[in-house]
Amino acid sequence: MLLLALVVPALLAPAHAVEGMWEPAQLPSLAGPLQTAGFPGDAAALARLDAAPLGAVVSISGCTASFVSTDGLLVTNHHCVVDDLQQAQKEGENLVATGFYAPTRADERSAGPGGRVYITEATVDVTDKVLGKVGGGKGRLSDLDLKARIDDATKKLVSGCEKASPGRRCRVASFYEGLRYSLITQVELRDVRVVMAPADSVGNYGDQIDNWHWPRHAGDFGFLRAYVGPDGKPADYAVDNVPYHPAHTLAVNAAGVDPGGFVMVAGYAGRTERWQTGLELERDATIGMPRRIARSEWLLDLYAQMVKEDPTAEPLLNVSRSYVSNRLFNDKGAVEGFRRAGVVDTATARDVALDAWVAADPARSAKYAAAIAELRTVVTRGDATRDRDEVLGWIGRADLLQASRTLLRLGKEREKPDAKREIGFQARDLPRIKASLVGMQKSLHIETERRFLRALLLEAAQLPPEQQSPELMAWLGASGGLGTPEARVDKAIARLFTDPAVDTVAEREALFGAKASTITASTDGFLSLAVALWPYDEARRQESKSDAGALARLRPLYADALRQMDPARSYPDANGTLRVTFGTVQGYDGRDGVRYLPQTRIEGIVEKAGPPPFDAPPALLAAIRDGKRGPYADAKLGSVPVDFLSDLDITGGNSGSPTIDAKGALVGLAFDGNYEGIASDWLFDAKNARTIHVDVRYVLYYLDAVANADALLKELGVSPTW
Amino acid sequence: MLLLALVVPALLAPAHAVEGMWEPAQLPSLAGPLQTAGFPGDAAALARLDAAPLGAVVSISGCTASFVSTDGLLVTNHHCVVDDLQQAQKEGENLVATGFYAPTRADERSAGPGGRVYITEATVDVTDKVLGKVGGGKGRLSDLDLKARIDDATKKLVSGCEKASPGRRCRVASFYEGLRYSLITQVELRDVRVVMAPADSVGNYGDQIDNWHWPRHAGDFGFLRAYVGPDGKPADYAVDNVPYHPAHTLAVNAAGVDPGGFVMVAGYAGRTERWQTGLELERDATIGMPRRIARSEWLLDLYAQMVKEDPTAEPLLNVSRSYVSNRLFNDKGAVEGFRRAGVVDTATARDVALDAWVAADPARSAKYAAAIAELRTVVTRGDATRDRDEVLGWIGRADLLQASRTLLRLGKEREKPDAKREIGFQARDLPRIKASLVGMQKSLHIETERRFLRALLLEAAQLPPEQQSPELMAWLGASGGLGTPEARVDKAIARLFTDPAVDTVAEREALFGAKASTITASTDGFLSLAVALWPYDEARRQESKSDAGALARLRPLYADALRQMDPARSYPDANGTLRVTFGTVQGYDGRDGVRYLPQTRIEGIVEKAGPPPFDAPPALLAAIRDGKRGPYADAKLGSVPVDFLSDLDITGGNSGSPTIDAKGALVGLAFDGNYEGIASDWLFDAKNARTIHVDVRYVLYYLDAVANADALLKELGVSPTW
Repeated sequence: MLLLALVVPALLAPAHAVEGMWEPAQLPSLAGPLQTAGFPGDAAALARLDAAPLGAVVSISGCTASFVSTDGLLVTNHHCVVDDLQQAQKEGENLVATGFYAPTRADERSAGPGGRVYITEATVDVTDKVLGKVGGGKGRLSDLDLKARIDDATKKLVSGCEKASPGRRCRVASFYEGLRYSLITQVELRDVRVVMAPADSVGNYGDQIDNWHWPRHAGDFGFLRAYVGPDGKPADYAVDNVPYHPAHTLAVNAAGVDPGGFVMVAGYAGRTERWQTGLELERDATIGMPRRIARSEWLLDLYAQMVKEDPTAEPLLNVSRSYVSNRLFNDKGAVEGFRRAGVVDTATARDVALDAWVAADPARSAKYAAAIAELRTVVTRGDATRDRDEVLGWIGRADLLQASRTLLRLGKEREKPDAKREIGFQARDLPRIKASLVGMQKSLHIETERRFLRALLLEAAQLPPEQQSPELMAWLGASGGLGTPEARVDKAIARLFTDPAVDTVAEREALFGAKASTITASTDGFLSLAVALWPYDEARRQESKSDAGALARLRPLYADALRQMDPARSYPDANGTLRVTFGTVQGYDGRDGVRYLPQTRIEGIVEKAGPPPFDAPPALLAAIRDGKRGPYADAKLGSVPVDFLSDLDITGGNSGSPTIDAKGALVGLAFDGNYEGIASDWLFDAKNARTIHVDVRYVLYYLDAVANADALLKELGVSPTW
Repeated sequence: MLLLALVVPALLAPAHAVEGMWEPAQLPSLAGPLQTAGFPGDAAALARLDAAPLGAVVSISGCTASFVSTDGLLVTNHHCVVDDLQQAQKEGENLVATGFYAPTRADERSAGPGGRVYITEATVDVTDKVLGKVGGGKGRLSDLDLKARIDDATKKLVSGCEKASPGRRCRVASFYEGLRYSLITQVELRDVRVVMAPADSVGNYGDQIDNWHWPRHAGDFGFLRAYVGPDGKPADYAVDNVPYHPAHTLAVNAAGVDPGGFVMVAGYAGRTERWQTGLELERDATIGMPRRIARSEWLLDLYAQMVKEDPTAEPLLNVSRSYVSNRLFNDKGAVEGFRRAGVVDTATARDVALDAWVAADPARSAKYAAAIAELRTVVTRGDATRDRDEVLGWIGRADLLQASRTLLRLGKEREKPDAKREIGFQARDLPRIKASLVGMQKSLHIETERRFLRALLLEAAQLPPEQQSPELMAWLGASGGLGTPEARVDKAIARLFTDPAVDTVAEREALFGAKASTITASTDGFLSLAVALWPYDEARRQESKSDAGALARLRPLYADALRQMDPARSYPDANGTLRVTFGTVQGYDGRDGVRYLPQTRIEGIVEKAGPPPFDAPPALLAAIRDGKRGPYADAKLGSVPVDFLSDLDITGGNSGSPTIDAKGALVGLAFDGNYEGIASDWLFDAKNARTIHVDVRYVLYYLDAVANADALLKELGVSPTW
C-alpha cells in the first residue's frame, strides 16, 4: 500500500481498516492487525478449516452460507435463495413474493436438481504439479502448449482428487495471477432444501432504489437445509434423505455487535481485479463498461416491454432482470467510482513506477521487462474483432442457442475419452449440465428470446464486412436468403422459432445423450445455428487458449514484480476460494455534507414504507408501530437494528457470508457493498468502501415477531418471545 | 402548536426552531424567542420597514432580492435571474449557460420590459374599508355581491393609493383568511439590469438531481441593478437612466455565519396553506396532486421529445421545463411528505377537535358551527365539472391561446370605465400585460404548442358528455367538422396553426389596443377559439367570484375559531407580503441511518463533478483543486462553505431572500427547502424542515477566484484577494 498511499493520499486507511481478502492460511501472520481490530483470540486457531468458525462456512451457487445448527441448517442471503424459491414453488405459487416457512422438516422443499453446498476440506499447493519444469518464467512451450499443459495437469489433479475422495468436488485455483496454484477439496452436497425466506418486500426491501446504497433496511436473509442419503453420504434429492450433520457450526450471538466492535466475514469471494495492468483498467473503463451499460439498458427496456405486453412473463424474467439491473448498476457505479477515485490514473501511475523500478536494476530488467511489455500487447489482441465477438457473445446468451451449443459440444466431447475432454465437459460435470438444461425452463420466455435474437442478429448482419463472422453470415444466408438485412433476419427468426427442437425440458433431456452426428444432421433452426457456429466457437476457443497460455506465462511475472516492489500487496485477487476479511462496525463520511451512521433501525422501515419496492408487509409494519421490540433492541440505538456497516473488504460471492464477532459467533450476514465502494473490485478505497450487513437481531426479530417461526428460532438456540 | 404537539409528538420543535413566517409588525412581540435564537438586538427596531435590514429587502417577479450597495445593486438567486438573462441575451448567446458579468455599468443589460423591483413602503390595516359593515360574519349580501363589494373596495383603495403616490404600486392583501385586509404600498422600479450571474452549471449545479435535496452545492446567486430616470423617479428602461439609490442597504458580512449561529430571512413568502380545512388537504392529496403529477410527467415527456427532435427548441423550452419539473418534484415531495407526516390525518384531527370545541359552548356554536359546516360544502362545489375544467384549464395554458384570450378580454374591459374594469385589467396593468405579450416570444415553440393542444383538445373531445364544454365542442365542430374525435381535432389543429394571427410580437402588439369587435370578427383560429370560449370563461369567472364571496364570508370564521382554540397559531399564511423567519444554522437527522451536516464544502463540488448537471466549469474545479481558499474558508470547516442549512420557515417567493445574521448583515441567500420539508407548506415540521442557503463566502469566493469580478467585489465592500 505504500505506493498507493503515495499516489492517492486520500485513500489512506483510518485506524482499523485492513484492506485484504485474506487466505485462511495467512491469518496467523495477521495476529497483530487482528488484535488491533479487536480480536482477542488465537489467530492460528482462527485459520483452521477443520474447526469453527471457518469450518462452518460453505459455498452455494454464487453465494456463501454457513451452518448454524448441527442438523444442517444454513443461513445465507435472501437474494441467494431466490432461485431456490423459484425451483421450490408449485404451480400458482410465487414464493419469492410471498416468502416461505417450513415449520417441520416435512414442509421443507427441494431447491431443485441444481442445489449444491460445497464444504471446503483442504487446500494444497500444487504449483509444481501444474507448471512442471516450466515454472512461472519464460516457458519453452508455446502458449497453446503451456495452456494445454496447465489444463492437463489440472484435469489430472482434479480427477485424481475426486477419485480419491468420493462425494467430493476438487478444483485447482490460481493465486497471484498464476504465481501459485492450489488444489481445493470440497464436500459436495446435492440435496438442498428451502426452510425459510421472508417475502421479497422484506428480503429485498428497497430493491433497485436502495441497491448498493446506505441507509439500507433490507432483511436479506434466508434459511436452507442440507440433506444426505440415509447412509450419511452426499446424494441427490430423495424423500428418505436425512439432514446433514456438519462437523462445525456457528453459534448465534443474539446480542449482536455494536458500532466499533470487531467483525470478520468469511466467504467465497468471487472475483476482484486488483492485479490488472493500468492498460486493462483503462480499457475496461472506456470500452468494456460503457458498452455493457448500453446493452444492459437495452435488455431492461426489452424485459419491461415484454412484461407490459404479457404479465405472465414477469416470474420468468424476474431473475434475469434483477441480474441485469444489478449488473447495470454495478457498471454505472464502477464508471463513477473509477472517475471519483481516479482508478485508471492510479493504476497507470503504478505501472509507470513499476517500469522505473524494473529498469533501475539489470537483473530485474532481464527478468521482468520483456514480459511486462509483452503483457501489454496480449491484452489488446482482441481489438480487431471486438465488435464481431461482442455481438456473437451476446447472441450466445439466448437460452435456446446456449442449450443447442451445449448439446452439440457434449456430443463432440463424448467422442473423446473422459480425461481428454475439455474442463467443464467431463463425466463429473454431466449432472450439473443436465440440471441447468432442465432448470432453464423456469426462466424461458420465448417472445423475449425472439426479440432478443432478432435485434442481435440484425446488428451482426449490419457489422462492417471485416467484422462479420462468415459462419454466421453463411447460416443467415441459408436460413434467410437474400434481401435486406431485416428481411433475412426475419426469415431466420421464423426458422429458429418454428417448433424449436430444444424449447421443452423433454426435448433437451432427450438430446442430452445425443451424438454430435445426430445434432449435425438436424434441420432445426437452433441446432443448425449451433452447428454453423461450431468452427467460429472452436477458433475462439483456440485463440482464447493461446491468450490464456500467454497470460499464464506473463501475468505471474507482472504480479511477482509488483509484489517485490510493494511487499504490502500481500493477498491475492478473489478467485472463488474461501477468504477472510476483518475490521470493525463503522459508518462513514461518504459525501460532503452527509454522515452515514453505522446502523439503521426498524423505525426506518416504517419511514420508507410506501409503494413497491417499499411495500413492507403489513404484519411487519404493525409489529414495529405497535412497539414490539423484545430482547432484540440495541440499548444504545434505542431500537432493533436492521442493517449495519463495516469497513470489511468483500465482493460478489461474499453474499450470504456470516458476519462473525470476536468470539466467533454469528452476528449478521454480509449482503452488499456501498455505492462509494463499487470500484473497490479494482482498487480498494479504505476510506469509503463499506460492507453492508443484515443484523442478526433483525433476523431473529422478524422470525419471532412477524414470521412466528418458533421451531426455527429454537433450532438457532433462541427462545421465542412472542 | 399545543394541539398539534398532542396529535403528532414527533413534530415537536428542537431548542431553537421557531415556526412562523412573521409579519414585521409582529417582531416586537417576539423579542423573547428572538433572543433565545441568538438575536441580541432591539426587536422593535428590527420591525421597521424604513430602516435596514427590512428596508433593503425587495420583491422581484416571484422572488425576493436585497439592496447591497447604495448604487442600487441587488443580490438574489441565480434561478431568479434566469428569465432576466434570457431577456438580456443577444442572438446567438445563451447567457443562462455561459453566465454573465458586466465589469462596468455600460456593460449591464436590460432585463427586458417586464423587469420589476418592488420596495415596500407601508402596510395599513384596511379591513373596515374592504368589508364595510359586512364584517367577517354572516353577510347580508349575496356571495356574488360580497365578492363585488370586496373587489370594488379593493380597486378603490388601490387606485386611490396609486394616485396619491406616483411611481407606486399598491395592493390589498388578505391575512388570516380574510380576518384582516391590509393596503400595501410599494415603490415600483421598472428599469432592471443584469450585472452578474454565474453559469447555470454553478448557479443550478446538480439541477433536478439535487433539487430539494441535501447535500447541496449550488451557487444559486445573481446580481441585478435597479435604475431610475435621471430625475430619480421610476422609469421604463432608457440608456440615460441612472442607478437607483436605495435608502437602506445590507452590509455584507464576509465572515459568514457558523453552525448554531442566529440567522433570519426576510422575504416575500408566496403562499402557504396552513389554514386550510382537513377536507381540502385530503382532496389536494388524493386528487389535485396526483393529477398534476400525471400532467407534469406528460409535459416533461413532451418537452424532452421536442428537444430530441429539434435541439433549437431547448433554449425556448428551458424555463417552462424547469418550472414544470420543479412543480413535479414539489408535488411528488408533497405527496410523500403528506404521507410521512400524516398531514391529512393531523388536519382532520384538528377539524374534529375544532368541531368539539365549537360544540362545547353555545355562544361559539351560534357563531361558528353553521359557517364551518357550510365551508365544507363550498370547497367541494367544483366536483361535478372537475374533469372539464381541468382539461380546459390546461388548454388555456397554450401561449397563443392565452395571448388571444388576453387580447379579447382587454378589448372587452376597455369598453368599461377604468374603475369598473376587472382587477388586473385596469390602465395600471396595461404595461405589465403588454410586456408579457412581448416577452412570450422568448419561450414560444410552435411545434410544442401544436402537440400540447392536439393532445388536450383530443382529451376534451373524448370526455363523457356531461363533462363536455358546449362552447368548445361547438368551436371544434365549426373548425373540425364531423368525423372521429382524432379527425376533428386534427382539422382544428390545422386551422389553429395555419398562419396564426398572434404568433409574432408585431401581431400581438398590433392587436394590443384592438376593440373586442375586431377580435370577434376575426376568422383566425386562436382568436376564434378565444371568442368561442368567452361565455365559458365568463361563467367560470362568475362561479369563481361567487365561491370567492362565500369563502370570504366563511374562511375568516373558521380561522377565527381556530385561533381562539389554539392561540399559538399566531401568524397568517404566506400571501406574497414581506415576512420574517428566524432560527439557527443547523443540520438534521432526516432519515434513519443518515445525519445531514449543516454545511457543504467546495471539495464537495469536485466530488460530484461529472456529466451534466454536474458539469462545473473547469475554472471553478481548477481553483478548488489548486487549493485556492483565500479569506473565504471557514476555519472549523477547514474549507470554503458552499451551502448551509437552517431551521427557518420559508416557501416559494422567498427565493433570493437575504439571510441576515445577528448584526443585520448579509451572510447568505435562501434558495430552497429540503425534501423532508416540502409538506411544510401545509403543516410545518420543525424537526425535519430545513431552509437551504448559499453561503456568502462561496458567492465571494466565486466572484474572486473564478469570475474575477473585482469591480463587483469592491462594490460589495470586499477587497479582491486574487
